[in-house]
Amino acid sequence: MMSKQTFGFIGLGNMGGPMVKRLLHAGHTVLVFDRDAAALARAVADGAQARSSALDVADAAATIFLSLPDGPAVQHVISAQDGLLQGKRVKCVVDLSTIGPRAAVAASQALGARGIAYVDSPVSGGIGGAERGTLAVMTACPQPLYDELAPVLKNFGRLFYMGAGPGLGQTMKLANNLLSAAAVAITSEAMAMGAKAGLDPGVMLEVINAGSGRNSATMEKFPKAVLTGTFNIGFAARLACKDVRLCLEESEALGVPMVVGAAVREMLVVTNAVYGKDADYTDVARLLETWGGVPIRQHVK
Amino acid sequence: MMSKQTFGFIGLGNMGGPMVKRLLHAGHTVLVFDRDAAALARAVADGAQARSSALDVADAAATIFLSLPDGPAVQHVISAQDGLLQGKRVKCVVDLSTIGPRAAVAASQALGARGIAYVDSPVSGGIGGAERGTLAVMTACPQPLYDELAPVLKNFGRLFYMGAGPGLGQTMKLANNLLSAAAVAITSEAMAMGAKAGLDPGVMLEVINAGSGRNSATMEKFPKAVLTGTFNIGFAARLACKDVRLCLEESEALGVPMVVGAAVREMLVVTNAVYGKDADYTDVARLLETWGGVPIRQHVK
Amino acid sequence: MMSKQTFGFIGLGNMGGPMVKRLLHAGHTVLVFDRDAAALARAVADGAQARSSALDVADAAATIFLSLPDGPAVQHVISAQDGLLQGKRVKCVVDLSTIGPRAAVAASQALGARGIAYVDSPVSGGIGGAERGTLAVMTACPQPLYDELAPVLKNFGRLFYMGAGPGLGQTMKLANNLLSAAAVAITSEAMAMGAKAGLDPGVMLEVINAGSGRNSATMEKFPKAVLTGTFNIGFAARLACKDVRLCLEESEALGVPMVVGAAVREMLVVTNAVYGKDADYTDVARLLETWGGVPIRQHVK
Amino acid sequence: MMSKQTFGFIGLGNMGGPMVKRLLHAGHTVLVFDRDAAALARAVADGAQARSSALDVADAAATIFLSLPDGPAVQHVISAQDGLLQGKRVKCVVDLSTIGPRAAVAASQALGARGIAYVDSPVSGGIGGAERGTLAVMTACPQPLYDELAPVLKNFGRLFYMGAGPGLGQTMKLANNLLSAAAVAITSEAMAMGAKAGLDPGVMLEVINAGSGRNSATMEKFPKAVLTGTFNIGFAARLACKDVRLCLEESEALGVPMVVGAAVREMLVVTNAVYGKDADYTDVARLLETWGGVPIRQHVK
Ligand SMILES: NC(=O)C1=CN([C@@H]2O[C@H](COP(=O)(O)OP(=O)(O)OC[C@H]3O[C@@H](n4cnc5c(N)ncnc54)[C@H](OP(=O)(O)O)[C@@H]3O)[C@@H](O)[C@H]2O)C=CC1
Ligand SMILES: NC(=O)C1=CN([C@@H]2O[C@H](COP(=O)(O)OP(=O)(O)OC[C@H]3O[C@@H](n4cnc5c(N)ncnc54)[C@H](OP(=O)(O)O)[C@@H]3O)[C@@H](O)[C@H]2O)C=CC1
Ligand SMILES: NC(=O)C1=CN([C@@H]2O[C@H](COP(=O)(O)OP(=O)(O)OC[C@H]3O[C@@H](n4cnc5c(N)ncnc54)[C@H](OP(=O)(O)O)[C@@H]3O)[C@@H](O)[C@H]2O)C=CC1
Repeated sequence: MMSKQTFGFIGLGNMGGPMVKRLLHAGHTVLVFDRDAAALARAVADGAQARSSALDVADAAATIFLSLPDGPAVQHVISAQDGLLQGKRVKCVVDLSTIGPRAAVAASQALGARGIAYVDSPVSGGIGGAERGTLAVMTACPQPLYDELAPVLKNFGRLFYMGAGPGLGQTMKLANNLLSAAAVAITSEAMAMGAKAGLDPGVMLEVINAGSGRNSATMEKFPKAVLTGTFNIGFAARLACKDVRLCLEESEALGVPMVVGAAVREMLVVTNAVYGKDADYTDVARLLETWGGVPIRQHVK
Repeated sequence: MMSKQTFGFIGLGNMGGPMVKRLLHAGHTVLVFDRDAAALARAVADGAQARSSALDVADAAATIFLSLPDGPAVQHVISAQDGLLQGKRVKCVVDLSTIGPRAAVAASQALGARGIAYVDSPVSGGIGGAERGTLAVMTACPQPLYDELAPVLKNFGRLFYMGAGPGLGQTMKLANNLLSAAAVAITSEAMAMGAKAGLDPGVMLEVINAGSGRNSATMEKFPKAVLTGTFNIGFAARLACKDVRLCLEESEALGVPMVVGAAVREMLVVTNAVYGKDADYTDVARLLETWGGVPIRQHVK
Repeated sequence: MMSKQTFGFIGLGNMGGPMVKRLLHAGHTVLVFDRDAAALARAVADGAQARSSALDVADAAATIFLSLPDGPAVQHVISAQDGLLQGKRVKCVVDLSTIGPRAAVAASQALGARGIAYVDSPVSGGIGGAERGTLAVMTACPQPLYDELAPVLKNFGRLFYMGAGPGLGQTMKLANNLLSAAAVAITSEAMAMGAKAGLDPGVMLEVINAGSGRNSATMEKFPKAVLTGTFNIGFAARLACKDVRLCLEESEALGVPMVVGAAVREMLVVTNAVYGKDADYTDVARLLETWGGVPIRQHVK
Repeated sequence: MMSKQTFGFIGLGNMGGPMVKRLLHAGHTVLVFDRDAAALARAVADGAQARSSALDVADAAATIFLSLPDGPAVQHVISAQDGLLQGKRVKCVVDLSTIGPRAAVAASQALGARGIAYVDSPVSGGIGGAERGTLAVMTACPQPLYDELAPVLKNFGRLFYMGAGPGLGQTMKLANNLLSAAAVAITSEAMAMGAKAGLDPGVMLEVINAGSGRNSATMEKFPKAVLTGTFNIGFAARLACKDVRLCLEESEALGVPMVVGAAVREMLVVTNAVYGKDADYTDVARLLETWGGVPIRQHVK
């Protein structure tokens, strides 16, 4: 049985907020900080204890979770004057953010120099997954540390151990998100062709999902947010684009060509160019609708 | 209840052979022809009755199935001197071949001019599906004719009605196969990147299949034919390449761009260029292994 | 000195019309046919003698030029009931049309079976080149025949001997046109980026043309039809798209991957999807202007 | 007439070495530094005066040129403890390196905070151009400063004024290099197709260079380093790849899609994957030779 513990948590946004809640519901004490006062207040309302800086958290908790937007944010929280590095009690930083493998390695080195462990542990599964505790948690750190953290990480979802080196969790997440983005893009192309030829998009998905063409877009995103014309799967094309860019950068650095991945990236860039900064991931399908001059919607029966 | 009937069947290869068997097992009489004497002999051994030409079949059966390699073969079987067009009894030709929408329209016109119905009905599901009667059957023809044919088509697998016009079945199949090929290509890229970074390919697939990256390649082809190093999924890269080419041609003719599809095609062309005419579909993964200098295999535990 | 001769000429359109004129000006007798009565009348006004079918031309002239829109047109003029094949005097057909290597081989076989030589000789240089006699003429046929034809071909422009086999002229033309289309597409991308960053597009071209970035688009098409905002280079995106498609088909058949060529094709397909059937070749640049939200025009000084 | 002046110069490699020589030949005094002692010695042998750090140079010269490998090197020379920022006399830093627009903006800000002007001035034209003083020099800085510097910059080659803001010179250079790389890649594809079909690569280039397909690769690189089989144009595929990556990053940041550019990048990544770190730019052609199974070499006459 896991005893009740005290944890730090920095970054209380769409993902961090519900994750803090899950720790609280499990009976833990959570010391929180976010530069956004509103986010901080919400966590306090949920039962967390506010601290006034990352340093304050690090002075009081041995294990601290991060759920921050990107690499520069993580770097700042670690290395700023009132950052984690100077903390009196912090021994281990568990980073749940998606920041790419290089930023993870850099964070690990900065913390390691002070004897603080860095756990690379991005998650996938969206806000719903964070609330329900059904995220996929992809963790990279030395095995003994992983075994120690597993009980608390299980509050967030299903655990996958990716290996010892920092960055492996990030790489896993980029690979997954590349596949996810590719599915959206190629499915948009195939569906627009079929619809233009006169097929019923709803029937097309039925056939595809019964056969060898199925993927996460045909199974979930298209039925939910394209056939319905809502285009609101809730993941920004801009973010998908960033993930694919990080993936291609990593891939190029590793010497692995991505001919198809590069085309996927450009489709996301075009989607952003045409539909603007707030474009949804599924707006790629809208782009194909426009190009093809044909809706990819459920036919009225 | 469906009464026992007499059918014609032309093209007794990998797919046609087992499909004839299923008709025979259902109690029907099947008159068969194939230019390959061995294929013909096998069907006779299974209980079918040999005829000496397409014309002979068309003189004796009202409904004739085709399972031929490509558009030119279908055109030949229809229009040659001893072809179907001159047949005394033929009323309906059910084409189970993959030939692309344009060839289907041409076949429909040639037959229609003689008052013979053409049913565009490609299948998907491989040899195993043909043997077990679990194919996806994508049929396009006027609805009453479809209703009439449905009982016999059910011998082959699950039925999907695609609409009245010839070519819609073909378009559906090309869309499905594009998605299938895209899954193989992008998964090869993502897996090579992960493997090169140090992830265990088996664990990668586990994570992907639990998340938003999953597709038919991560769920079936990679566990079966890549992690094992066998590269023998049993579908030729050359045929996948042909399907994607037909798909892009159709798409261009319809005015639907396929930026990602075009990249998928080239990956298949490169695979054929590097691994030759007999390359398996999954050899795309082998190509990425070579480029990345890293195996995408199950780690020994 | 070349003696005056009698030639046949079929296809009197944008290219054929001016080429007939050049033969007439050189003092030759030209027997002409076109299914378009107006085109025929124009040639007669120029001094040519009208014939009422391809067969009529082939009954009266030993050497016949073709300038027809595509492969099917060439096939029809050769093999129709009133086609060249039955002609009493025809010995040699010089095909100036762009039809792709496979159509050229087919034409050569059909004519060869009757002892008629086929000369694969597409041209490049546009209507202006046809009028001024400055086309590039890419001829494939046996060398002795080439030597015999060279004096009359020189009326059209500069001669290049591509080899003996039919199709080599076509392949040469497809390769050239792929490079031309690629230049338009990549230049559009580079110019849009520069313009968006704040560079003067006119200055950009100056720098590029002084350096290693220059190509036929930066040297001619962009100064003439993009910086000016006219987008009227006079070659349809649709035709460029067709050439690139033929090129990719040929390339795939030969086993030569075209990763960049495939991307070029899709940019042309998108351009047609967005700007319609009459889109100019240079509308690719207009597409990038729209995507980037930035004009690629000469800055007012 | 320009009076003789004293300049600083840091980075004395392939490009910096010959540029220092040109300043010396023009009669100027040049104070130099390079962390590579051999490079420093060579410059001294040419007549320059060695200094022992960037700071030493900045204590003695008002205008300092940089010719360094990349952004991090420039950042280090500026901001290190013995860097330019602390220099007593330095008023203006002219950066001849290729570092991308973002690094240029960062350098400009760092120097600007100390009242030192940053001139973004990358060059193109290779080592030969540096020696002969025929580089293209793409300069971005306020106009009055440009007018002041023009006389000394003319020692290096032909001047182009790109605008006031730092980064515009870099963007110009990335655009040019993208076009240059695209030319190499697409020409490799077109030439391999032609060669496989049986065309003589030498004749192909002749035709292309007379027509609309010509670009810097068909005009210079292929005759020199591909037809000859030497593959030694002297620019590393790795560097071309880096330039295209910087270009795509910039382009994505600006919101300008690069569908063709992305394909070009991947061809360079594949080239590096197959031919290793020292691959020449023209090895892209070698890759196509291997894929197509056909040499792209001058036929022996
Ligand atoms: N294999 C698979 O997994 C799948 C295949 N398909 C499609 O099913 C169709 C059949 O495929 P498959 O069975 O694998 O192909 P096969 O090549 O195994 O069988 C085709 C048969 O048709 C014969 N044939 C060809 N031309 C003629 C002719 N003019 N007259 C008479 N017989 C002729 C062939 O003889 P010969 O050997 O002499 O050429 C051969 O025996 C194809 O269109 C394919 O794309 C669809 C789904 C899955
Ligand atoms: N335009 C250009 O800039 C260039 C064109 N080319 C190539 O040159 C060829 C000709 O092009 P272009 O002159 O522009 O084309 P046009 O369409 O202007 O001319 C073709 C002519 O052929 C006639 N024609 C078509 N089919 C037949 C037939 N069966 N019997 C008799 N006449 C027929 C057409 O009549 P109708 O109008 O009734 O169809 C038309 O008058 C094409 O292959 C093109 O790709 C090459 C380089 C440059
Ligand atoms: N080569 C070419 O054809 C062209 C190059 N360029 C650009 O010009 C720039 C210079 O290229 P190139 O001359 O070929 O490069 P080189 O590597 O030959 O020269 C760079 C020199 O700078 C020195 N250096 C690096 N870091 C420092 C430092 N912190 N302090 C002092 N010296 C340092 C290097 O020393 P060390 O060897 O110890 O690293 C080296 O001697 C690059 O930005 C390149 O992209 C532009 C056009 C053409």
